[in-house]
Amino acid sequence: MLALAFAMLRRAAPRVHNITNYVSANDVANLLLAVGAKPIMADAPEEVGEVSAHCDALCLNLGIPNPRKRTAMLLAGQAAAAAHHPIVFDPVGVGASAFRQEIASELLSTLPITAIRGNVSELRTLANGGQHNGGVDVLPQDAVTEENLPQAIQFAKSFAAAQHTLVVLSGAIDLVADADRCYVIRNGVPQLGEVTGTGCQLSALLAAVLAANPAEPLEAAAAAVAGMGLAGEIALCHLLPHEGNATYRSRILDALYHLDDITIQKGANYEIR
Amino acid sequence: MLALAFAMLRRAAPRVHNITNYVSANDVANLLLAVGAKPIMADAPEEVGEVSAHCDALCLNLGIPNPRKRTAMLLAGQAAAAAHHPIVFDPVGVGASAFRQEIASELLSTLPITAIRGNVSELRTLANGGQHNGGVDVLPQDAVTEENLPQAIQFAKSFAAAQHTLVVLSGAIDLVADADRCYVIRNGVPQLGEVTGTGCQLSALLAAVLAANPAEPLEAAAAAVAGMGLAGEIALCHLLPHEGNATYRSRILDALYHLDDITIQKGANYEIR
Amino acid sequence: MLALAFAMLRRAAPRVHNITNYVSANDVANLLLAVGAKPIMADAPEEVGEVSAHCDALCLNLGIPNPRKRTAMLLAGQAAAAAHHPIVFDPVGVGASAFRQEIASELLSTLPITAIRGNVSELRTLANGGQHNGGVDVLPQDAVTEENLPQAIQFAKSFAAAQHTLVVLSGAIDLVADADRCYVIRNGVPQLGEVTGTGCQLSALLAAVLAANPAEPLEAAAAAVAGMGLAGEIALCHLLPHEGNATYRSRILDALYHLDDITIQKGANYEIR
Repeated sequence: MLALAFAMLRRAAPRVHNITNYVSANDVANLLLAVGAKPIMADAPEEVGEVSAHCDALCLNLGIPNPRKRTAMLLAGQAAAAAHHPIVFDPVGVGASAFRQEIASELLSTLPITAIRGNVSELRTLANGGQHNGGVDVLPQDAVTEENLPQAIQFAKSFAAAQHTLVVLSGAIDLVADADRCYVIRNGVPQLGEVTGTGCQLSALLAAVLAANPAEPLEAAAAAVAGMGLAGEIALCHLLPHEGNATYRSRILDALYHLDDITIQKGANYEIR
Repeated sequence: MLALAFAMLRRAAPRVHNITNYVSANDVANLLLAVGAKPIMADAPEEVGEVSAHCDALCLNLGIPNPRKRTAMLLAGQAAAAAHHPIVFDPVGVGASAFRQEIASELLSTLPITAIRGNVSELRTLANGGQHNGGVDVLPQDAVTEENLPQAIQFAKSFAAAQHTLVVLSGAIDLVADADRCYVIRNGVPQLGEVTGTGCQLSALLAAVLAANPAEPLEAAAAAVAGMGLAGEIALCHLLPHEGNATYRSRILDALYHLDDITIQKGANYEIR
Repeated sequence: MLALAFAMLRRAAPRVHNITNYVSANDVANLLLAVGAKPIMADAPEEVGEVSAHCDALCLNLGIPNPRKRTAMLLAGQAAAAAHHPIVFDPVGVGASAFRQEIASELLSTLPITAIRGNVSELRTLANGGQHNGGVDVLPQDAVTEENLPQAIQFAKSFAAAQHTLVVLSGAIDLVADADRCYVIRNGVPQLGEVTGTGCQLSALLAAVLAANPAEPLEAAAAAVAGMGLAGEIALCHLLPHEGNATYRSRILDALYHLDDITIQKGANYEIR
């Protein structure tokens, strides 16, 4: 089931418009190429509507925001919405400033977001509003564990219901939820968090997979999450003792480049709750 | 002949001013360092004229445009022109928006561009004006093949004549033309297209090679194209089965780092038409 | 002594706010993750004060400046100063334009900079004012050698005294000075200069190490410099004959990822003058 979503992605080769940030932009572009999609980056209000209209999906990344980018995200989102493209929103570091929270609130209230992907602190900030933690990292008390899993699933479903979106909550355990169902995915390794931008990459992958699988968005999103986690696992197997997070960065994309249906079929570790 | 151009490049170690984009900027800088040139990035109208005047070449890259970058490209171009530096223009994704087309038209009509490098869809958009394809990729009907090669050569020569520039058309077969002669270069591999920014890198390499070989610009440009293609071929030889486009990205630059006269002499595969 | 500084860094895991440039931003983030610190990038005046207040250190990088970034550097610096965070200033290419010199002068006269890190040409431009060399590279006549080492040490100490900061002068021989003492460090290899952004990376590492070792800033800064040089040495040992500056780029970060107390203890090559 999940394997099919990746096969569809390579067949459809969707164009993904990214309004992203300059830390992870190169990785995001190479990830999309690795899975057979076509990346386009554009962030000027002067052109984003036109660019997005010609694409198949839009990924909005809150990292390193500024007022022009804010306007561009709105304009691109409106064009993507008019064309019925999937829109993924990644609220990078939304707890870091009131400015990021304002932009996030505006996007959520204005655009028909298809999926929101973030870590649990980011999603709780969005859900609760107004809390600042000053960073892009998960607060220890927020982390999803086997102990608080039922509550975390309920949070994801409720937030999905409230926002009329899919919710993708990244962590040691990943959750992919709509209002009714939640994929609980146990792929991935902690080392993924030692490479900058793996979350940004996953958000772009979500946009691509959603564009290629319009009939099954929840399954498609779960496939993207499991696939990214599997790539992290495979990449770690190829790492030599003296290699660290920089070589691992390349190995993750290498693994996605070779990720095929059978690997996903065999390796995806999930349950539906 | 082509080998000499690279030897001159490593001897001259030219400073190349890049107004580029944040997807490929790091790769562009490392490419220039790999071939012995010195990269400088600056994109603010407040300083680009001064920066460019102190360099030896200018590379203008249309990727991720905005109004300030547009002004900066004009100011840097005027300073480079006044100092008789070679100017390379890379019309990244010019078909993606009217905004990119406006900027491209302004640059082409204002600046004494030395070489224009792009894929065939980008160059046809420039030559014809007004057509939008919404992306940075080649339309299938545009691709240069052995069958339509004579027409493609004629297009490249005519466009070069009309714009008073060199034209570098990147594809499965690469063309490097002035109004009278066209190098038809059959180096490179399709996998170069699976790494983001290899076109941006080639444009920066062109600027460096042109600065180091002012007497023979057509040969110098052909050398850059053959050298980039050869680097792609060599890089592929070193790729292990589990490695993908991310490791390949590094291997391309590694190959350029070691590219020497003999390799180019033996490996360059071209004819002049 | 120096080894302890790195151990403290991994224990403290400081948050480092970077106002940096889009050439080296990804490497800077991965370097900070490699040594156990937490990178945050933000460069909008609308949020930098708030972001910086929530961090533990600030790194201001002059590369690819623009007016909004200038304002952001001042606002972030004021917030960091109010919170008594260490502030590192990297005057990338300050000789390239009057615009960069204006910004540098404003930052130096306004903010309580903890450490200034640059190559000798950049630091001489700062110290003397008004000289332009048009680039980011060291002028041959400026390079620190064994012959002119006493004068270079005196320059570093005097500049440190005049600016009330630490001065970190990067070159074939590295100097880390306050007004009274100067670490003369002979780690590193020339190949570090063939990878873009290794200076930017070192500046971010300095910010992280200073945040984790507030009681011993001179020693902490010397540890960062020796550690980066050692990483360059170790990385070179792992490089295969066909690998070049792109793979070397990853190997440097890989080496930092594994850098431990014993390696620094054994490998740091320095004297205090």
